[in-house]
Amino acid sequence: MTFTTESHPGVRAEMPAATRGFVLNHSMLRVKDPAVSLAFYTGVLGMRVLRKLDFPEMKFSLYFLMKDDDAAAPDEAGERTAWTFSQRGILELTHNWGTENDPDFRYHDGNAQPQGFGHICFSVPDLAAAVRWFDNNQVAFVKRPEQGKMKDVAFIKDPDGYWIEIVQPDLLTGLGRS
Amino acid sequence: MTFTTESHPGVRAEMPAATRGFVLNHSMLRVKDPAVSLAFYTGVLGMRVLRKLDFPEMKFSLYFLMKDDDAAAPDEAGERTAWTFSQRGILELTHNWGTENDPDFRYHDGNAQPQGFGHICFSVPDLAAAVRWFDNNQVAFVKRPEQGKMKDVAFIKDPDGYWIEIVQPDLLTGLGRS
Repeated sequence: MTFTTESHPGVRAEMPAATRGFVLNHSMLRVKDPAVSLAFYTGVLGMRVLRKLDFPEMKFSLYFLMKDDDAAAPDEAGERTAWTFSQRGILELTHNWGTENDPDFRYHDGNAQPQGFGHICFSVPDLAAAVRWFDNNQVAFVKRPEQGKMKDVAFIKDPDGYWIEIVQPDLLTGLGRS
Repeated sequence: MTFTTESHPGVRAEMPAATRGFVLNHSMLRVKDPAVSLAFYTGVLGMRVLRKLDFPEMKFSLYFLMKDDDAAAPDEAGERTAWTFSQRGILELTHNWGTENDPDFRYHDGNAQPQGFGHICFSVPDLAAAVRWFDNNQVAFVKRPEQGKMKDVAFIKDPDGYWIEIVQPDLLTGLGRS
């Protein structure tokens, strides 16, 4: 295997030496109620909470989650913080204290106007089994695999309404081929 | 090393067997002009374009980028699509055709109201060197490392105004400790 990259206007094919060791560590989403979000991301998506950081002065807490079935992380809290920030594919959930007590409070999912952020995506080994699992857990779907133009691609909603794409990689080899 | 997790209301400590093999694959951001965004993400952040998928019927293209200095990906396009969806820490940029030609068009960064998505984050081996690199490339800062309450944490902006956190993991061992 080589590392084939695709060309397009703007693309710099050769990696700048100054960026060696940069890691796309996490994406951050604000959540209304961490108890509800953590139940979803750990209980339904199988993530683990690597680190919880509290900032009482600024009245918020951060939760760093990872989906890696076999990883090992250091026990000591400070070392685990540093380790967490060294990984790829972390999800950071930000809880601004008190939002969970306001029945009218909700965050913006990025897909309603004004648009920007679209979704996060989990790939799964078996899409049909994953759909059954989500149904058994009363997860809301934006789009089931058989709906719409893109077959074999599902979108579910997290408790705040953020979209989560669900795909099975080996079903997508023909995607977007002209 | 063990895999220490943190407890909190809602957290399921034991991973559900049905989620084995789930991978947090990517986060998707809409971008106005792919040539500008790709120049930034490849030329300044050192990412590589794994896959470009075009959907002419729906008038959009998707760009899948990865920052992994040593990874190898398959040459054949379909296999590379499947491989791309199997990785962790991918960034997907969505281009809805034509936005680049509208001078008034802009996406919502999620930090202005209405809030939701917050940022993506890159960790770097040397924060000071990364800041010099960003300054040399005329990157806009939301917050420089020495500003604000959180020292040693920087935020830059991508060409659409999305925030990108920049951290050096070993400087953060004391973060959020009570």
